[in-house]
Amino acid sequence: MKFELTKEFISDLSDAAASGNNTFISNSLLDLHPADIAEILDEFDFEEAKIIYGYLDEEMASDVLTELDEDTREEFLASFSAKEIAESLDNMDSDDATDVIQDLPEHRKERVISELEDEEQASDIVDLLTYEENTAGGLMAKEFITVNENWTVEHAILEMRKQAEDVEQVYTIYVLSDKNVLIGTLSLKSILFAEDKTLINMLYSGEVRSVKASVESEEVVAIMDKYDLVALPVVNDEDVLLGRITIDDVVDVMREEAEKDYQMASGISEKVESSDSVWMLSRARLPWLLIGLLGGLLGAQVITGFEEKLGQFPVVASFIPVILAMGGNVGVQSSAIIVQALAQNTLGLETTGIKLLKELVVAIINGLICSLLLVAYTLLMHQDIMLAVTMTLSLMSVFVYAGLFGTIVPLVLNKYKIDPALATGPFITTANDVFGLLLYFLIGWSLYF
Amino acid sequence: MKFELTKEFISDLSDAAASGNNTFISNSLLDLHPADIAEILDEFDFEEAKIIYGYLDEEMASDVLTELDEDTREEFLASFSAKEIAESLDNMDSDDATDVIQDLPEHRKERVISELEDEEQASDIVDLLTYEENTAGGLMAKEFITVNENWTVEHAILEMRKQAEDVEQVYTIYVLSDKNVLIGTLSLKSILFAEDKTLINMLYSGEVRSVKASVESEEVVAIMDKYDLVALPVVNDEDVLLGRITIDDVVDVMREEAEKDYQMASGISEKVESSDSVWMLSRARLPWLLIGLLGGLLGAQVITGFEEKLGQFPVVASFIPVILAMGGNVGVQSSAIIVQALAQNTLGLETTGIKLLKELVVAIINGLICSLLLVAYTLLMHQDIMLAVTMTLSLMSVFVYAGLFGTIVPLVLNKYKIDPALATGPFITTANDVFGLLLYFLIGWSLYF
Repeated sequence: MKFELTKEFISDLSDAAASGNNTFISNSLLDLHPADIAEILDEFDFEEAKIIYGYLDEEMASDVLTELDEDTREEFLASFSAKEIAESLDNMDSDDATDVIQDLPEHRKERVISELEDEEQASDIVDLLTYEENTAGGLMAKEFITVNENWTVEHAILEMRKQAEDVEQVYTIYVLSDKNVLIGTLSLKSILFAEDKTLINMLYSGEVRSVKASVESEEVVAIMDKYDLVALPVVNDEDVLLGRITIDDVVDVMREEAEKDYQMASGISEKVESSDSVWMLSRARLPWLLIGLLGGLLGAQVITGFEEKLGQFPVVASFIPVILAMGGNVGVQSSAIIVQALAQNTLGLETTGIKLLKELVVAIINGLICSLLLVAYTLLMHQDIMLAVTMTLSLMSVFVYAGLFGTIVPLVLNKYKIDPALATGPFITTANDVFGLLLYFLIGWSLYF
Repeated sequence: MKFELTKEFISDLSDAAASGNNTFISNSLLDLHPADIAEILDEFDFEEAKIIYGYLDEEMASDVLTELDEDTREEFLASFSAKEIAESLDNMDSDDATDVIQDLPEHRKERVISELEDEEQASDIVDLLTYEENTAGGLMAKEFITVNENWTVEHAILEMRKQAEDVEQVYTIYVLSDKNVLIGTLSLKSILFAEDKTLINMLYSGEVRSVKASVESEEVVAIMDKYDLVALPVVNDEDVLLGRITIDDVVDVMREEAEKDYQMASGISEKVESSDSVWMLSRARLPWLLIGLLGGLLGAQVITGFEEKLGQFPVVASFIPVILAMGGNVGVQSSAIIVQALAQNTLGLETTGIKLLKELVVAIINGLICSLLLVAYTLLMHQDIMLAVTMTLSLMSVFVYAGLFGTIVPLVLNKYKIDPALATGPFITTANDVFGLLLYFLIGWSLYF
């Protein structure tokens, strides 16, 4: 059962694919989990991957398709006929099938849907396609098990047996009223230990947490994380059960969100992995580099404005790295704390005013500590009191400015429904570079030059 | 059931606590989830929080204790007697109870354990305490349900009924051989639909993924995420079942890892939230600021070495921000990609040599694009061809240096079992500041000055 991807394995499999060694390929893939096979296929170029994919039986092929890297999957789908895609989708859970269809070009979507043999699956997919991708509706699947509150345990078990065929993992049994309103949940445990003739409404728990289909996926993550849920039912405005979201999908959303914020903070503008092509890696990194370059050049313009003075007092130039380093660090720190609080919904009840006030105090505390060290360095190296005063004032201004700016930008972006993570990383560093230098040279100009 | 934390609610509750309005407090907390009550308590200062906590019944009090913010929980525990803590622990799952005990000062641990009334719980906790916190053993709980392969369904249901009392959520039933070796799993679904006299070994699935107790928690996260598991059994070297890890705990680990990497990349050295005190916020941010200051001062030293030349050619100073901005961005981008690949185990099969080669090509592509723009700017603003050549060579050197350095540092740290995330953020930016400036001035010195 344990599988580890090795170079030897990949090269053996590649040889087998080239020489048509069917037995070797079939045996190698036997007993592997679809996620493992997907990982293997991602290591091959497309032509080889397709040969190996051809050895999978129908159900495994569908499962592997769900697990494939998005780029690889797109290549596969492009090479399939509408009928082939439809056959794969018939074997998938409705939410996975919908994700696959969503990635298809417009003109293929309808053809694939019309080729679906399982009518229930087709109607589920058509329904799921109406929800926005990043909402509860976009995350839910149509596979779940329900019982009516007025059924007996015996009857419920019969009904569940029918429904259970389509449901891979039964986490919870949802209890509905006669009007299909979600009124509670029934644990498998309780039904297992109950008498045949007991009515469901004697057994079920009325405590059920649900979300409306329009709730954003970030909130879904927060709810399932906070309340330790493995499945969350989705309802419409009349509390009629529409679908359920399972924890594995939410874990994926969570990971993607964290990755996105992390990459944003590191100046990477697209989802890339270290194993992607050089071209993709370059493209993902170029936008922030250009912003950084622009910031650097604006900084250069600020300095050029004081070039004559710099010729007379070149010592002022030597402190440029200090100003830039501190402004950048303070800005990123402040904005990261806000971005994280927004992402995790832990801003608490403090008002923006209080946040800014706290940030001001933090800036003053840390600014004073750093200034003290900077003054010591300046006096030691240059024996110039006026220079020390200039540096202290400049550093303090930069701390206060960068701290407040870093706090307020993500809050403002969030207010206007723009991803606050945009604030972190090169964007704020760049803005701080320019304004930090401006503050520094203006203070230097008033006091020192 | 829906709960939203509001300022009004907190202030009403605070008034009620002050005036001893028992009915209001009891009613307010009625029907709330322990996670909600924990969130409420985190908004109060300790004295008030303790008054409100006093209104909870024994079981709810234990649940809330598990959910509390670590800082708040420590305050609570410090104010409890060993007997009071033991009473709370008796109601908890073994893994949560172990986490609580682990945070206690050494001298209290034994006293609390000796006060535990539930002997099974006590022995479970003593056992769980032997595992390292960040391993599978440290994550697992002792609450799970097992059946013997030779039992009938009827007998298994009887035995499960006894075991199920302690198990909050039954995800999987583990099937053991006569020697307690884990040989498979049984879904509740299959037992529900089977005849009474059927033997378990006719029903169970032999496909079971398990981990050894010593496996690191990061790997546990990767496995459960990859294979979409909600529970993962933990075994010893003889495959005897020791415990099980549930997805909610893994989600917590995942979130903490992502937070830690994100904070590291943003220069925050301790776990802080925007609602923490000014003092904690300052302390968490100071270490990286000091490193940044050191880097800035080293940069200042580099520049001071060329001060005389700068007096003659102050235009060179104006490009310092460009060099610093680009070196910092490139370094952080490269290291972030590696850090993320290490965290998610997606490094793939490429060797370090190939990674560095790719990084070199990326540096050259993006470096050339940025250099082109920089040359245009330089010629436009300064009409100085030699300056343009100097800038191009400097920028290209910085791109190559920062890209390779950013790639190799996290790989080296990881090899020596140091958290590679240390590489990102201010550390690498700072190193790049110094070396970037050195490259720039050395090239300037050879070509331009």
